[in-house]
Amino acid sequence: MALFSISRRSRVTPFHQRVMEHGVKAFTFYNHMLLPSLFTTLEGDYHHLKKDVQVWDVACERQVEITGKDAAFLTQYLVPRNLANMKVGQCYYTALTDHNGGMLNDPMILKLAEDHFWISVADSDILLWAKGIALGMKLDVTITEPDISPLAIQGPKSDELAARVFGDNIRDLRFFNFAKFPFMGREIYISRSGYSKQGGFEIYLDRFSDGNALWDAIFKVGKDLNVQAGCPQMIERIEAGLLSYGNDLTILNNPFEAGLGKYCHEDQIPDFIGKAALTKIRKEGHKREIRYLAVDGAPLFFKGTPWKVMKGDQFVGEIGSITYSPDFKTNVAMAMIEREFWQEGTQAQVHSDDGIRNAIIHEKSFI
Amino acid sequence: MALFSISRRSRVTPFHQRVMEHGVKAFTFYNHMLLPSLFTTLEGDYHHLKKDVQVWDVACERQVEITGKDAAFLTQYLVPRNLANMKVGQCYYTALTDHNGGMLNDPMILKLAEDHFWISVADSDILLWAKGIALGMKLDVTITEPDISPLAIQGPKSDELAARVFGDNIRDLRFFNFAKFPFMGREIYISRSGYSKQGGFEIYLDRFSDGNALWDAIFKVGKDLNVQAGCPQMIERIEAGLLSYGNDLTILNNPFEAGLGKYCHEDQIPDFIGKAALTKIRKEGHKREIRYLAVDGAPLFFKGTPWKVMKGDQFVGEIGSITYSPDFKTNVAMAMIEREFWQEGTQAQVHSDDGIRNAIIHEKSFI
Repeated sequence: MALFSISRRSRVTPFHQRVMEHGVKAFTFYNHMLLPSLFTTLEGDYHHLKKDVQVWDVACERQVEITGKDAAFLTQYLVPRNLANMKVGQCYYTALTDHNGGMLNDPMILKLAEDHFWISVADSDILLWAKGIALGMKLDVTITEPDISPLAIQGPKSDELAARVFGDNIRDLRFFNFAKFPFMGREIYISRSGYSKQGGFEIYLDRFSDGNALWDAIFKVGKDLNVQAGCPQMIERIEAGLLSYGNDLTILNNPFEAGLGKYCHEDQIPDFIGKAALTKIRKEGHKREIRYLAVDGAPLFFKGTPWKVMKGDQFVGEIGSITYSPDFKTNVAMAMIEREFWQEGTQAQVHSDDGIRNAIIHEKSFI
Repeated sequence: MALFSISRRSRVTPFHQRVMEHGVKAFTFYNHMLLPSLFTTLEGDYHHLKKDVQVWDVACERQVEITGKDAAFLTQYLVPRNLANMKVGQCYYTALTDHNGGMLNDPMILKLAEDHFWISVADSDILLWAKGIALGMKLDVTITEPDISPLAIQGPKSDELAARVFGDNIRDLRFFNFAKFPFMGREIYISRSGYSKQGGFEIYLDRFSDGNALWDAIFKVGKDLNVQAGCPQMIERIEAGLLSYGNDLTILNNPFEAGLGKYCHEDQIPDFIGKAALTKIRKEGHKREIRYLAVDGAPLFFKGTPWKVMKGDQFVGEIGSITYSPDFKTNVAMAMIEREFWQEGTQAQVHSDDGIRNAIIHEKSFI
């Protein structure tokens, strides 16, 4: 960790005041916005997330809003996942690639109406990408970043907490679906989704100035559930194998490498950006893919430069994320692993800043 | 300032090791990359920059490289500045807008050949914007982020230091021009430019692995010039009125508001993105423009949320950047000021986190 200079450019969120009052200890920077990254300790945040319920300021999950006559065409054109059967109220996780099939983002798309979509983006300016494509193709769409700031409720007690704030109906909301729920005399969108495997919701606050009110409404009724401020939690998300764009994959990776081949439907979609490239890659077979590593020894701390994975003097792959898991009592990592080595149980060595460590490559994530 | 979690997503630069060894105290995050923001103290860095010479890791000034048959067309189509007379070896500072005339960036363009340009970008993914436009228009171009990492030499002793490393010819390089200079048995591009008004150069390192070598070559010959590690310096850049995209202007501002009207040539360019919008805005007159404020009282510290400028109960504008200037013995700020109040010498009040302060609005920057 290092000190970080805050300026207007590192935009604050509607929940910033409350996040500070709840003792945030560190941030990262995501879509030109502050994203809390630590509240108590890495292990403290982790155990609490798995046991109780947390409120996360994930306003940095900005929405790219596409409306207009060509909105459905453009949204489909941007992604390799078939949206033909997508219903209003559904969320689709998808790759988003350039014409070479290089990953630009791995967003979640929300369909609000037949001609109204939100692309809830990871950390890259898909707003500019989508606007550029639309302008170049002279499409009839409006593309903006609306005043929408997600606040997540995550953890095993999420249903109980959300029901107390938004009503018992929210318990019936299905995974990766969203609907409107009452809040402050109006209705706001809430999805059953989130960047953990502990269950929960993402609340799409539609008015910056209501940040404190939303936060307080949740905390007021959550004391006995031991609700706490939290944030996307590195240990849990690596255990869960949730991708982090920029960490585990970049523009140099294609969706197959990212493990998203099952969401690519080249043969079902008339045309989309990257169709030819993805068709070719699928036919020829991709050369590496994301895998989950257990790495021996004392806790390892990553300083941002990918570590090589080797087997003797053979290149096996590169680690993008690694941390120590208290529950699994081993270091857990996500790495791009070459085809020759990606089978379950392959043994290899990680060349860490802390020396060479033995590792086992797994095909499935830890949780 | 706050603590900052470093990961692969906050990409390190080729100079990171040396920056750490030179005692960097804080970073910011810029184009998905670490940008040092403090080495000694804000005032220490400032006085040294104005007196001696500094080496800045500005690798985060990423280059969007455009090559191919349509490269000249696309580069011109992206910006409102007339590039018709731009010569190979020149740098042009320019606005870069969307079709509404909203600022997406304020890059410096380098023309390397008739069909080869670098857009040296401020903090937004212009790589995606340019690729999107090109793909939508089916242009014959290749657009990439090449392995180019600028390292700046800034300060009054820059010419002497650069001449010792790259030869005396560099003294003849004109402002906002660039040329090739010898380094490690090859030639690399260097421009006379940089994000300060103290003079200096930007060196476009073309091989990540040579970061230490370039850094060391400069420091080895600069001891008697008192060369130190530095970084874009907030006090000096606000005194100098250098714009910071995301701080002083956003997509909600047009180039006239940013004070870049003189670089907009709507009538000279057959077509470019935003031409109709900028033509209309120029005709109707823009409603606010960037101004430079002297703000009374003790040093003010900005926490990222713009402060209002008022005159009694009238809205005068909003501050995007502010700091205390030791040389001018006052707080200095940059603000978007409404037309009615933007004349030299207008008095107003800044509603800071530290209370209401008297301010004077200036038409020119402090240095």
